[in-house]
Amino acid sequence: MAKPNLQIACDYNDLPSALADLKNVGDAVDIIEAGTILILQGGQDVVKSFRALYPDKIIVADTKCADAGGTVAKNCADAGADWMTCICSATIPTMEAAAKEVSEIQVELYGDWTYEQAQQWLDAGISQAIYHQSRDALLAGETWGQKDLEKVKKLVDMGFRVSVTGGLSVDTLKLFEGIDVFTFIAGRAITQAPDPLQAANDFQAEIKRIWGE
Amino acid sequence: MAKPNLQIACDYNDLPSALADLKNVGDAVDIIEAGTILILQGGQDVVKSFRALYPDKIIVADTKCADAGGTVAKNCADAGADWMTCICSATIPTMEAAAKEVSEIQVELYGDWTYEQAQQWLDAGISQAIYHQSRDALLAGETWGQKDLEKVKKLVDMGFRVSVTGGLSVDTLKLFEGIDVFTFIAGRAITQAPDPLQAANDFQAEIKRIWGE
Repeated sequence: MAKPNLQIACDYNDLPSALADLKNVGDAVDIIEAGTILILQGGQDVVKSFRALYPDKIIVADTKCADAGGTVAKNCADAGADWMTCICSATIPTMEAAAKEVSEIQVELYGDWTYEQAQQWLDAGISQAIYHQSRDALLAGETWGQKDLEKVKKLVDMGFRVSVTGGLSVDTLKLFEGIDVFTFIAGRAITQAPDPLQAANDFQAEIKRIWGE
Repeated sequence: MAKPNLQIACDYNDLPSALADLKNVGDAVDIIEAGTILILQGGQDVVKSFRALYPDKIIVADTKCADAGGTVAKNCADAGADWMTCICSATIPTMEAAAKEVSEIQVELYGDWTYEQAQQWLDAGISQAIYHQSRDALLAGETWGQKDLEKVKKLVDMGFRVSVTGGLSVDTLKLFEGIDVFTFIAGRAITQAPDPLQAANDFQAEIKRIWGE
């Protein structure tokens, strides 16, 4: 079982705030995500700035693209993104068009997706999925449970590299022990910690403790 | 049956191009849409610019929001948007959070949504839906058909104000005759016409011919 990646989600209302936080932890994570809120606010300058600051990191543009996949993905690639997200309700042609422009597409799982759809994504050559506890669902009191873990396991068994995100902390990582998680995505658990670099290092140490080097 | 609105979809790779086209037709349409591609490229300056140029028009931020509805919607409202779109696979808490911040939420129908979900949106007080022929589906050769028109009718019967979009032209409006369409959304059929203002006026004239004043 490979060591899962650690991804920092940079989601802010303005680019300067994102840059200030990213500066603390960018070198300590494996993947840097330009969050949806931030891209909607700052546009393509967000991905361009992240790429300029971290030329060697994997950068994800979290566009949650639903349509015009080719255009959106080309714009993301031009700005410097390696990967881009599509929403699960996007059509297969949209995902396929996007996949031609960036290195990889990640499918963001929200709402009532089905394993039948998931198989169609795999059949289209798209093998990354993001299992997401919705922020608003978390605010409404929902949390990680056995039901979520079973879904993640099933997706892994189908052949997906699965990223998980939503309300994760160092303490919740052990819930995923024994599951071949591809990437843990954390945001405020790192950036709003008293010492963000220490928090990122704590995540990495806990990942290594559970999954090995 | 009320006269349907005409909405111009401004979707470009950069704000200046959008502004150049919008200048020609902004006064001739009822609703101005800041398109997803454009917002992802230009950020909040897009909506701010549209609002500055057209203080009295309805402005829609086509964010296709999937999560963090409250934050995204507040940002859109702060920039000057009246309405905002959510993707159909967003959770009800996401839509409800967004609905508190902008005047109205429109649900963008992509992929395998169900009428059961649609009823949940209505129950949550969200009564605008956008029936969308995906650009990528259109490119793949799909087009408007009886199946689409039946779905639009059913949504109208359920109580939605339904906007329709995707490959519309003046000639295709008559397909919708007898259906209480809320808004026709057009993009390149207007902006890439030899005379864009004339094209917008032709749309409005055909709408009036079919649905009356």
